[in-house]
Amino acid sequence: MPYVNIKITDEQVTPEQKQALIEGATQLLVDVLNKNPKTTFVIIEEVNTDNWGIGGQTVTHLRKQS
Amino acid sequence: MPYVNIKITDEQVTPEQKQALIEGATQLLVDVLNKNPKTTFVIIEEVNTDNWGIGGQTVTHLRKQS
Amino acid sequence: MPYVNIKITDEQVTPEQKQALIEGATQLLVDVLNKNPKTTFVIIEEVNTDNWGIGGQTVTHLRKQS
Amino acid sequence: MPYVNIKITDEQVTPEQKQALIEGATQLLVDVLNKNPKTTFVIIEEVNTDNWGIGGQTVTHLRKQS
Amino acid sequence: MPYVNIKITDEQVTPEQKQALIEGATQLLVDVLNKNPKTTFVIIEEVNTDNWGIGGQTVTHLRKQS
Amino acid sequence: MPYVNIKITDEQVTPEQKQALIEGATQLLVDVLNKNPKTTFVIIEEVNTDNWGIGGQTVTHLRKQS
Repeated sequence: MPYVNIKITDEQVTPEQKQALIEGATQLLVDVLNKNPKTTFVIIEEVNTDNWGIGGQTVTHLRKQS
Repeated sequence: MPYVNIKITDEQVTPEQKQALIEGATQLLVDVLNKNPKTTFVIIEEVNTDNWGIGGQTVTHLRKQS
Repeated sequence: MPYVNIKITDEQVTPEQKQALIEGATQLLVDVLNKNPKTTFVIIEEVNTDNWGIGGQTVTHLRKQS
Repeated sequence: MPYVNIKITDEQVTPEQKQALIEGATQLLVDVLNKNPKTTFVIIEEVNTDNWGIGGQTVTHLRKQS
Repeated sequence: MPYVNIKITDEQVTPEQKQALIEGATQLLVDVLNKNPKTTFVIIEEVNTDNWGIGGQTVTHLRKQS
Repeated sequence: MPYVNIKITDEQVTPEQKQALIEGATQLLVDVLNKNPKTTFVIIEEVNTDNWGIGGQTVTHLRKQS
């Protein structure tokens, strides 16, 4: 009964991509630890680029530079 | 000083229901562990049904089937 | 399919108390939102009092004062 | 490679304030533990005042009283 | 720069299995969203079976029944 | 009433360093957002280096290489 929480920046992730993340993470737990997929939760959280920092800078700032 | 995080799908939960969850979770910590309610935090996070997977499927998909 | 995470200080919580927290939190989601208990997760995390701060002080420090 | 998650109520926090939180938290890990800022993540989550409870009451309710 | 948090029950997971989870989750984010693996974090948390509940019962209890 | 969660690798962090993290994070929220320190929580989680991955490798592995 694993629980997987995936945080990513909120940058136009499609429902199909979310479905692929959910399927892939669930399958990973089956493959590695033989966990039951029926009781595997995957929760995706999309975080505004203003609210995510790395290296002391917001991702909003980093995206402008690149 | 407990901290309770409740994640639920974002499906028209009312302010009254949120208040009931907060009261109930706070009281549970009083009843079971005699914790001080004044320093008990409850945070409710509502998650889009596209972003919550169980059994390798999004809840959006599961709701359509049921 | 709710997910509840309860963080408390690690101060000799018994298995019976943990069971009571799990039952109580699961029932709360049934009562307030009619959620299915079979797919309700409750995870309790016990945090060392050195690692929990409130008001800028560790709980270890606060326990010594009280 | 620390990970810092800051949850605050969603009450008109500006991008400049978010930047200050990210810089400050990253610097704190440098100062105290000599962590590499390049692999320090800070994620800020803004929570609706209806969804945050303290003392068994929502922050929405507490704001009205004060 | 995704962040993946995997919570599983604490039941003799080996370092090799943890490595496989970390590799697999990192690759999933590359495959689905083209994320940079260098700034992808994966954190595995092992939870005592007394502290994990599903269906209102601890996993400790469920393991004894099965 | 902010909540700050700091995850770091479990590598001999002292009680004094934990106290410094708690004080610093609490003060940061006072300085930037004028939050009340009395209801500011800081929780530090120390994660085994086998359980933390970056770039698809465990920190245990990275420490051996460096």
